[in-house]
Amino acid sequence: MTDTDIANDPEIATDETASLIASNKVEGTAVYDEDGEKLGSIYNFMVDKLSGQVEYAVLQFGGVFGLGSDYYPLPWDKLTYDTEQGGYVVDVDKETLEAAPRYSAEEPPAYDQAYGERVYGYYGLSYP
Amino acid sequence: MTDTDIANDPEIATDETASLIASNKVEGTAVYDEDGEKLGSIYNFMVDKLSGQVEYAVLQFGGVFGLGSDYYPLPWDKLTYDTEQGGYVVDVDKETLEAAPRYSAEEPPAYDQAYGERVYGYYGLSYP
Repeated sequence: MTDTDIANDPEIATDETASLIASNKVEGTAVYDEDGEKLGSIYNFMVDKLSGQVEYAVLQFGGVFGLGSDYYPLPWDKLTYDTEQGGYVVDVDKETLEAAPRYSAEEPPAYDQAYGERVYGYYGLSYP
Repeated sequence: MTDTDIANDPEIATDETASLIASNKVEGTAVYDEDGEKLGSIYNFMVDKLSGQVEYAVLQFGGVFGLGSDYYPLPWDKLTYDTEQGGYVVDVDKETLEAAPRYSAEEPPAYDQAYGERVYGYYGLSYP
């Protein structure tokens, strides 16, 4: 689909444009690995209140591939939107995800600087 | 509420930390004017897919104060989160909002560069 197609389709233009995507559309969007296998979906994302920068996309894997029903926070940069699949592709292999930082709904993290450094560091990135 | 209170409250910590807020919590959050009067709520926000930067918070006013049921895209910088009110405060007066760029669900904008310049320009900001 080209940018022009997207701009001309009113259904799509509400939620998604060539470069922007609506928050309520991202939630629930499928997440695939690099082989095109569906892993799970995006639960929500965490936004810096002051800057408006999305720091994490939080994924849910729903028990597939041995990945639990926990929440997996991922640095935004690890996600790529794939227009063909209509979902996000995660540039991370299954083994890496299996050992990745995660949390249950009952024990959410503080999402402070230390947590940011731990999560970003796990994926080989510096926390902003 | 202090940062420590927030970090220690499991209900809050799931969705909101000292500096981060969850996308699914922002949606539906109340929006107030600077006098503390409730204007409406946040419908969603529009995120740059590549950078993860929130470019607009889209407001709904639900017909209060003569503001229609249309969607009003606001530059993220025009919103301030007020922990006391548990909502966002808009640094814009009613007259400015009444004449602000808006759209109906049936006629969404393309959210392209020209639209960005129009909306940001209306609020006296440069589009990134």
